[in-house]
Amino acid sequence: MKQDLNVIKIGGNIVDDPQRLERFLCDFAALPGERILVHGGGKIASAIGEKLGIESRYEQGRRITDEATLELVTMVYGGLINKQLVAKLQALSCNAIGLTGADANIVLANRRPVKTVDYGFVGDVPEHGVSAAALEALLNAGLIPVVAPLTHDGQGSLLNTNADTIAQEIAKALSPGWRVRLIFCFEKQGVLRDAADDSSFISTVTKSEFEKLLASGIVSGGMIPKLQNALNAIDSGVRRVVIGQAESLAELVAGTKGTQIL
Amino acid sequence: MKQDLNVIKIGGNIVDDPQRLERFLCDFAALPGERILVHGGGKIASAIGEKLGIESRYEQGRRITDEATLELVTMVYGGLINKQLVAKLQALSCNAIGLTGADANIVLANRRPVKTVDYGFVGDVPEHGVSAAALEALLNAGLIPVVAPLTHDGQGSLLNTNADTIAQEIAKALSPGWRVRLIFCFEKQGVLRDAADDSSFISTVTKSEFEKLLASGIVSGGMIPKLQNALNAIDSGVRRVVIGQAESLAELVAGTKGTQIL
Repeated sequence: MKQDLNVIKIGGNIVDDPQRLERFLCDFAALPGERILVHGGGKIASAIGEKLGIESRYEQGRRITDEATLELVTMVYGGLINKQLVAKLQALSCNAIGLTGADANIVLANRRPVKTVDYGFVGDVPEHGVSAAALEALLNAGLIPVVAPLTHDGQGSLLNTNADTIAQEIAKALSPGWRVRLIFCFEKQGVLRDAADDSSFISTVTKSEFEKLLASGIVSGGMIPKLQNALNAIDSGVRRVVIGQAESLAELVAGTKGTQIL
Repeated sequence: MKQDLNVIKIGGNIVDDPQRLERFLCDFAALPGERILVHGGGKIASAIGEKLGIESRYEQGRRITDEATLELVTMVYGGLINKQLVAKLQALSCNAIGLTGADANIVLANRRPVKTVDYGFVGDVPEHGVSAAALEALLNAGLIPVVAPLTHDGQGSLLNTNADTIAQEIAKALSPGWRVRLIFCFEKQGVLRDAADDSSFISTVTKSEFEKLLASGIVSGGMIPKLQNALNAIDSGVRRVVIGQAESLAELVAGTKGTQIL
């Protein structure tokens, strides 16, 4: 009988907001059972980068990670944000351990090959990039991994990797041994039929329903890759993917709030 | 029969020098057996702090850690330096895991009480502040802890703590279960009779010899607290303390170079 494991991802909108973060961390610490937290970056990296004279460059909407930017995100994501989360969780009696992909070699990535755009020090996680054994050793030691959006290339360099991707790859890699629930916390209550109407949220989405939503144009924009990734995770053995509001963490875990992707 | 454990401390003079660091990390990765690396800060924190407009303030020769400085050292020590060390060690097949005192609650400290000077967010490590169990769980999982000079207060705040202190407290805490060798890497070959003459180094120092060296004025300045701390560590069960050059790491471990304090 497999044990439950919740892999929970929070983004910049929570990391940047002290009150929401405080509440989220209390809820996270109060969850029973095994869990892993993956956090995104937030605006603080850009604010500190600006002061340091590191320009934010974007190509096709994506940030280019040059060497100075890699140092910046290593400091801010791997240091400032990650360690502050860990210290706050420790105060809530939650035995957190902060990690990048380099620590204990938990997430090895490939530097993205240059095609039309050179994204710089950006890592894509290949199959078997996540070390399930390393994460399990930490979980078995009673620790709660808190993972920053950084990976490494195995040749001495850290790499910048999207937090959604890290959460998803960790969830997939741990699915052979655990009943994994992958929870994406975002601003909305879940997938909405009408983006302007919070009450229009869809409680469950299956693969065939997703295709209908897509064909009818109900799901569009940034929600399409989110749902595609979620369905892809389900195909890879993740038991359930949940998309919903951080404020409802306990309910997202219980399955009474948020959009459940089956 | 207790197993050997080397607790090795490097300071800013190595962290700040890419070539010396590279060589040190190769030697560290090549060491056999269990080991823990504790690293200091280096000048990069001051350089980044200057760009960020964070003033370095000192009282009686010691840096004052205000809130902005705490954020700075959390970024630089806990993020930039620590994670770069881990990524480089991983490239050398050394399964490193980067930690602050908050991670896995390995080093709990008390904020230094305000007497004549308010040092700000500076942590002193009390008896039982180091969790030997947490460090042993990581060692037993085949991991090599790499510890930044940061602790936490258990109430949600990180604290700035001297790397020598952290190394020493870790060595003391692990001594009941391990044959611990505590190695301080610094610029000189060891304790010198004549600071200007590298060949005048003293190969072993015992407690009674230290008192003679002190009385005769041969040992002075910053070397006095270093030796006092080393002797104090020996009194607390650490098997051996070695002070010597990073370039001779294997020999420091083997006992053929450096000053051995017994």
